[in-house]
Amino acid sequence: MSNKSIGMVGLGRMGANMARRLHRKGLEVTVYNRHTEKATDLAKETGMHAAESLEALVQALPSRRIVWLMLPAGEATQSHIDSILPLLNRGDILINGANAFYEDSIAQSKKVEAAGVNYVDAGVSGGVWGLQEGYALMVGGSQEAVTQVTPFLEALAPGTDKGWLHCGPVGSGHFVKMVHNGIEYGMMQALAEGFAILQGKTEFGLDLAKVAEMWRYGSVVRSWLLDLTADTLAKDQVLADIAPVVADSGEGLWTAQAALALKIPAPVITLALQMRWASQGRDGYAAKLLAMMRNQFGGHAVQKED
Amino acid sequence: MSNKSIGMVGLGRMGANMARRLHRKGLEVTVYNRHTEKATDLAKETGMHAAESLEALVQALPSRRIVWLMLPAGEATQSHIDSILPLLNRGDILINGANAFYEDSIAQSKKVEAAGVNYVDAGVSGGVWGLQEGYALMVGGSQEAVTQVTPFLEALAPGTDKGWLHCGPVGSGHFVKMVHNGIEYGMMQALAEGFAILQGKTEFGLDLAKVAEMWRYGSVVRSWLLDLTADTLAKDQVLADIAPVVADSGEGLWTAQAALALKIPAPVITLALQMRWASQGRDGYAAKLLAMMRNQFGGHAVQKED
Amino acid sequence: MSNKSIGMVGLGRMGANMARRLHRKGLEVTVYNRHTEKATDLAKETGMHAAESLEALVQALPSRRIVWLMLPAGEATQSHIDSILPLLNRGDILINGANAFYEDSIAQSKKVEAAGVNYVDAGVSGGVWGLQEGYALMVGGSQEAVTQVTPFLEALAPGTDKGWLHCGPVGSGHFVKMVHNGIEYGMMQALAEGFAILQGKTEFGLDLAKVAEMWRYGSVVRSWLLDLTADTLAKDQVLADIAPVVADSGEGLWTAQAALALKIPAPVITLALQMRWASQGRDGYAAKLLAMMRNQFGGHAVQKED
Amino acid sequence: MSNKSIGMVGLGRMGANMARRLHRKGLEVTVYNRHTEKATDLAKETGMHAAESLEALVQALPSRRIVWLMLPAGEATQSHIDSILPLLNRGDILINGANAFYEDSIAQSKKVEAAGVNYVDAGVSGGVWGLQEGYALMVGGSQEAVTQVTPFLEALAPGTDKGWLHCGPVGSGHFVKMVHNGIEYGMMQALAEGFAILQGKTEFGLDLAKVAEMWRYGSVVRSWLLDLTADTLAKDQVLADIAPVVADSGEGLWTAQAALALKIPAPVITLALQMRWASQGRDGYAAKLLAMMRNQFGGHAVQKED
Repeated sequence: MSNKSIGMVGLGRMGANMARRLHRKGLEVTVYNRHTEKATDLAKETGMHAAESLEALVQALPSRRIVWLMLPAGEATQSHIDSILPLLNRGDILINGANAFYEDSIAQSKKVEAAGVNYVDAGVSGGVWGLQEGYALMVGGSQEAVTQVTPFLEALAPGTDKGWLHCGPVGSGHFVKMVHNGIEYGMMQALAEGFAILQGKTEFGLDLAKVAEMWRYGSVVRSWLLDLTADTLAKDQVLADIAPVVADSGEGLWTAQAALALKIPAPVITLALQMRWASQGRDGYAAKLLAMMRNQFGGHAVQKED
Repeated sequence: MSNKSIGMVGLGRMGANMARRLHRKGLEVTVYNRHTEKATDLAKETGMHAAESLEALVQALPSRRIVWLMLPAGEATQSHIDSILPLLNRGDILINGANAFYEDSIAQSKKVEAAGVNYVDAGVSGGVWGLQEGYALMVGGSQEAVTQVTPFLEALAPGTDKGWLHCGPVGSGHFVKMVHNGIEYGMMQALAEGFAILQGKTEFGLDLAKVAEMWRYGSVVRSWLLDLTADTLAKDQVLADIAPVVADSGEGLWTAQAALALKIPAPVITLALQMRWASQGRDGYAAKLLAMMRNQFGGHAVQKED
Repeated sequence: MSNKSIGMVGLGRMGANMARRLHRKGLEVTVYNRHTEKATDLAKETGMHAAESLEALVQALPSRRIVWLMLPAGEATQSHIDSILPLLNRGDILINGANAFYEDSIAQSKKVEAAGVNYVDAGVSGGVWGLQEGYALMVGGSQEAVTQVTPFLEALAPGTDKGWLHCGPVGSGHFVKMVHNGIEYGMMQALAEGFAILQGKTEFGLDLAKVAEMWRYGSVVRSWLLDLTADTLAKDQVLADIAPVVADSGEGLWTAQAALALKIPAPVITLALQMRWASQGRDGYAAKLLAMMRNQFGGHAVQKED
Repeated sequence: MSNKSIGMVGLGRMGANMARRLHRKGLEVTVYNRHTEKATDLAKETGMHAAESLEALVQALPSRRIVWLMLPAGEATQSHIDSILPLLNRGDILINGANAFYEDSIAQSKKVEAAGVNYVDAGVSGGVWGLQEGYALMVGGSQEAVTQVTPFLEALAPGTDKGWLHCGPVGSGHFVKMVHNGIEYGMMQALAEGFAILQGKTEFGLDLAKVAEMWRYGSVVRSWLLDLTADTLAKDQVLADIAPVVADSGEGLWTAQAALALKIPAPVITLALQMRWASQGRDGYAAKLLAMMRNQFGGHAVQKED
């Protein structure tokens, strides 16, 4: 008989909504967060069980315990693993659902599995829409561990048999998620460039919101990212008070790095990342030097910083 | 009372299916093709009227006549316009549905409108799937002319009120369609790079067909292009007998040119085009020269052509 | 016996120094500028003859007259051609030394040659250093006209037999100059990126001025652009008060356009141009839209304009 | 009194010529190569001393011994270090002159310095021309060690006080050399693209050899790489029997990786590398998939592999 109980550690936007979705699908969820109010609030809202400590969380779970970590990558995830690992028994399962560089996940898994605990890496896509529409889940780990986790994957995914995949061994889940985000960078940049061209062609007086809405049906570029773009443009297509600065959060960089390591040309994905960096001003020194070179050879004026 | 009758000139893959879709929606379609068998075959199949000549087509249409040209861009379209223009009356409407550079469409419209005939440029997306799912239609022209044509746009589009747009004045339809295809180049390249990275990571033994299928639900990159990719990979993910050569048919180039003319950076769209050209060997001279430079300064071996 | 007399029209930085260099080499130079003080000042400084009007310039020259226009491309050049053309005789020679798109030069030449006057397009490189070191000259025109002009080319170039070339027919001079500048964009960007990487590696505490100076001898990247970079960095390698904005003046754009028209991939040259545009903020709308897309799907914060 | 004696290990193209240059400048060179004929041949040619083993080499050197390793990066260098390290005394100096990723050099230095031996990393540029013109040398290591090595750096460099630099601590020499090669990739690609555009403009019938030669004087793009290009084109500008395949040997990749790690946009350097990979067919899977996508949505024909 399969275990229907799971612990969710980390109740940010993603973790809290994933807990809600699991709960709504009839699974038993115990939640924990470093700031315990988040857990107690969520428990009050939903009727789930809130644990006040990692010890309490572990004790509330039936064996073989399944714990899903939904924490910021790096430091936060690692410190929680260090704390929870001694509390777990052989055969328990630890799922790292954060975005992480897949090589880090593999290294992390070695320590976890040395303690007899199974490690599963899960890439999770879906953002703020996942609660309603379900999360795409890319999972790496042993067949045995993933089978234990399957009821939870089926509940989180858009459908029991779709939107989730056991990709391969440990690390492959985060690898596939990383590439997914790399593709996302490229697709977003392509869309943004296209709308910028439309916006620049002022003499046609195009209504960008209507163009985006129209493309959602029957066009080759119809896509979820276009749906979101249409939503945004419907509210405001001038974007006067938005700063032209695009953040990045790791996965695009990791994809570019993985492509280099594999010697696979990924010029568009890499460039989409570099354009974000340029928007952040990270090309500033190069630009200053170019301005000075032009000044040197052509006597061209150089703009001074205010 | 609005005119329900239209002439379709050019019965290639696109034109023939568009005629079928109009006919199925209860509109009256007269078809013409330079090789008349195509027209008579289509008439036999569907019960539409086939015209044996442009003269016959024009005479078969009630006034104000509406003629949709669905011919290869450039020469073929222009020569048919030259032939049909003297046969039309003031107030008739000529729709150019081919992919064309929008500045050429504007130039073309001036000659047509000098003869008193209304010109509408329509960008049509949907490819081989349009017959079933409807065509995305991007239309440029006067309000008056587009109003006349609206019943046909509503029938061709995925829905009467969605998937088509009167974008603006003459030229704007082809401009928006051009940018649509430019975005398509960038999105396709991003997807292809991503799957190439997955394919290169051989130690994970990823099933690319399953990854593509999984991403179709809940992921950020879900899109019609991903649906097609999933279809392709489901049949064959090795692609051993496919040549690594990607053709291009004008719209990507026009988008890159338009972006340059507007001084809008479109690096990802432009690079997607340049990578297609590289796949066609158009970077050959540069590559040969680079190989020789390396040989000159480092004594590195140069590969000889067989 | 060959004509040793020339008229120089346009006494900006380039034109004035070219006149000086011709004069120093013993050639007879008559100078004209719309603001006549520039001409009279230069005459006073050097002993050349200053003409107060185009009429006076033309009358001061022996036949077959040779007039070198060194004016801003476009409007200014064309209006001076329109003014001077009626004053010239059949067989006289008009040289356009401005940077111009080669197709415009070919169009311009047709009008000039219709009046029986020979047209020569000359691309001039060398900037503020040309007076001392000589100018690289890329010349297009008939063999006959270029032969007449040869004494002046030999005097302007770094050496009588080097640094100038009769490239081919009219337009080819400006074409070769345009590609020269395109290469310059790419080389500059490569250098700037490299120094930006060095500058970003703060833990090594590199002295960029010393690195640049060292590379000037024996390295593969030694080049005049590196010499200028070393000069700049020797004065200031922090560049704190330089704005990170790189201007562009046409030739990079024309090269990118020519490459597209020829379907030759020139990704690095094109991207060097696009990065300049990004530094000018021309990627702003795309960046704003990307920030909004991230907000839509991930709830990521968006930076507001101050 | 400073030591004038050095051991050179590894007598490939680079190592042998560096030994020759040191010898010609009056320094005492003992040479060793795994295949000992190379060493004995060089000794016969020049009168240097050849050592038959690493032991013999070490014994032939006065203390403090200075040994320059000029071996292929990676395996070969590491195994020679492992062999020679036990033979050296505290205070001896080991110079790694191979191209290596600077982080690997830092890791390597730690083991070497743990044995009390000083480690210097030296990036060497100059290729087959270095024997005559001198080598650009980028050196990392302690001030004390570099001072010991200075006589040899002065002899190898194009001038005693130019063309070499003590960049900073261990690793900085290889870092600066790596970035040098990254810039080289970008400059080469810019030049190659430019000549490809010239070559594609067939109607002008340009003589590319003459263009390259002309640009060597007074132009903005004059550079050593242009000198080499001019040499190549003077011999053959058709390049009919050269395969359009450009190899790469690590430094471009390392530069792209370092730029990513530092979050500095280096789009042109990165793209120059990716275009080399494309020339090697490493974009093949992406291209095949793109061809299949086009087929899926547009019914476009796909080229089959022969």
